Amino acid sequence: MHSLICRRNIISKNRFFNAIENRQNQLKSLLCIGLDPDPRRFPECFLREKEPILAFNKSIIDATADLACCFKPQIAFYASNGAESELEKTIRYLKDRDIPVILDAKRGDVGSTAEQYAIEVFERYGADAVTINPYLGFDSMEPFLAYADKGVIIVCRTSNAGGADLQNLVLQDGSQLYEHVAHQAATTWNSNENIALVTGATQPAELSRIRQIVGEMTLLLPGIGAQGGELAASLEAGEGGGLIVSSSRAVLYASSGDDFAEAARLAAEATRDEINAHRGM
Amino acid sequence: MHSLICRRNIISKNRFFNAIENRQNQLKSLLCIGLDPDPRRFPECFLREKEPILAFNKSIIDATADLACCFKPQIAFYASNGAESELEKTIRYLKDRDIPVILDAKRGDVGSTAEQYAIEVFERYGADAVTINPYLGFDSMEPFLAYADKGVIIVCRTSNAGGADLQNLVLQDGSQLYEHVAHQAATTWNSNENIALVTGATQPAELSRIRQIVGEMTLLLPGIGAQGGELAASLEAGEGGGLIVSSSRAVLYASSGDDFAEAARLAAEATRDEINAHRGM
Repeated sequence: MHSLICRRNIISKNRFFNAIENRQNQLKSLLCIGLDPDPRRFPECFLREKEPILAFNKSIIDATADLACCFKPQIAFYASNGAESELEKTIRYLKDRDIPVILDAKRGDVGSTAEQYAIEVFERYGADAVTINPYLGFDSMEPFLAYADKGVIIVCRTSNAGGADLQNLVLQDGSQLYEHVAHQAATTWNSNENIALVTGATQPAELSRIRQIVGEMTLLLPGIGAQGGELAASLEAGEGGGLIVSSSRAVLYASSGDDFAEAARLAAEATRDEINAHRGM
Repeated sequence: MHSLICRRNIISKNRFFNAIENRQNQLKSLLCIGLDPDPRRFPECFLREKEPILAFNKSIIDATADLACCFKPQIAFYASNGAESELEKTIRYLKDRDIPVILDAKRGDVGSTAEQYAIEVFERYGADAVTINPYLGFDSMEPFLAYADKGVIIVCRTSNAGGADLQNLVLQDGSQLYEHVAHQAATTWNSNENIALVTGATQPAELSRIRQIVGEMTLLLPGIGAQGGELAASLEAGEGGGLIVSSSRAVLYASSGDDFAEAARLAAEATRDEINAHRGM
């Protein structure tokens, strides 16, 4: 797979995917660290901070940046805390260090509204990539896809149990809904070649099917760690193209004591190494 | 349909739907006004305001509140402008006047993240109802549905052209995806009896089918006005249960001159009257 990544560097034109692949090769890490800050789980010292979420994020980033190909703030955790400015500053902190940022927002709305969400994600926050939801169809995704230098990561098969409710529905032609989404993403929607897919690491068999459908397209695998995704099976299933393996809570909250940063680093390092061991690196 | 609304007042337990129905009966209006503030379309005088979005919204609310059963801020328009505090104040302004608020957010994510979005919508902003996306399945909607007094409006069939891309896919049993969502919403997901559905006013035939599936469940119809929804056909198709008919840009931007508030009122009044004429009121 390593050779595939290198080959793709030559043909890929997209700034986000180039940055990810370069950093993955340079750091030898497919690990993405999710920044899902939950102040209830912070070590006590942060609760006295003026901007506790920002301070916590900075500590995590400082402790783990050389182990991660990118970071993925989940916007819900900022919105629930009224912490948009801390999200802005977190992303700025990452970009000042040339670290790619995926804003996990799973937005989806009709075109004129989607335009506003695209402005939110790419212009206000300056994210390099975003996650979006395909239920409203292609024209709801176009405003994001129009940012040709950005990554647009469409939710295809999610890691939660309920993901099956709609995504595994069988269509008239025998395919399942998530397969249809993968097929459309690979054949019809991707004229700017900036699409990736969210494919939960809890479903290796379906991940394998998605890889078959989309060829080398990059897949974002959440669900490692806290959500119980099977790493070895997922990595094998995802072989043959770009992969970003995301872990959030298992890294962020590896310890709630004063050693939280060291514990986060150890957890990130262990995950990176486990990923590389399965890839024979 | 009026008698149905009255009957439902007696059996309905949900605070949001009770408030909507009471206000619909009292004002004789099914009209919901969407607050999609786009500063580029504001009359010039607002651009000198410290909080232009809030000031514009207040003018619109003051001019139209007695014509609308509720208001529906679309959160993307606030997020793209970094105007969360103006959204908070807009909702507070509405709630101080006992006017129900739907926060149009179309959120959707795995459970632990959806919990954060539910906190954002119901606790931070204090909205009475929210729109959400069903693609991630039931457990992604549960954190919203757990707020039994709130309205949870699931996107079923949207008004945009691309809505057909996934929502009209035919399943193995011959039903279409949007019909499956409607069926699940009516039979399986609604244990707190707080679900409504988004059903675009541009698709009367499908709206009619949804009404057949969900019985008296309330339907939110966006797409009137700017999106070209057919009002008469939609109202006929939606008969037999709760209806909320939403118009945004056609009201907000009826005039870009100093007469914008009067023009908004006239547009809202005309839409309310047209709705009532078709209902024989």
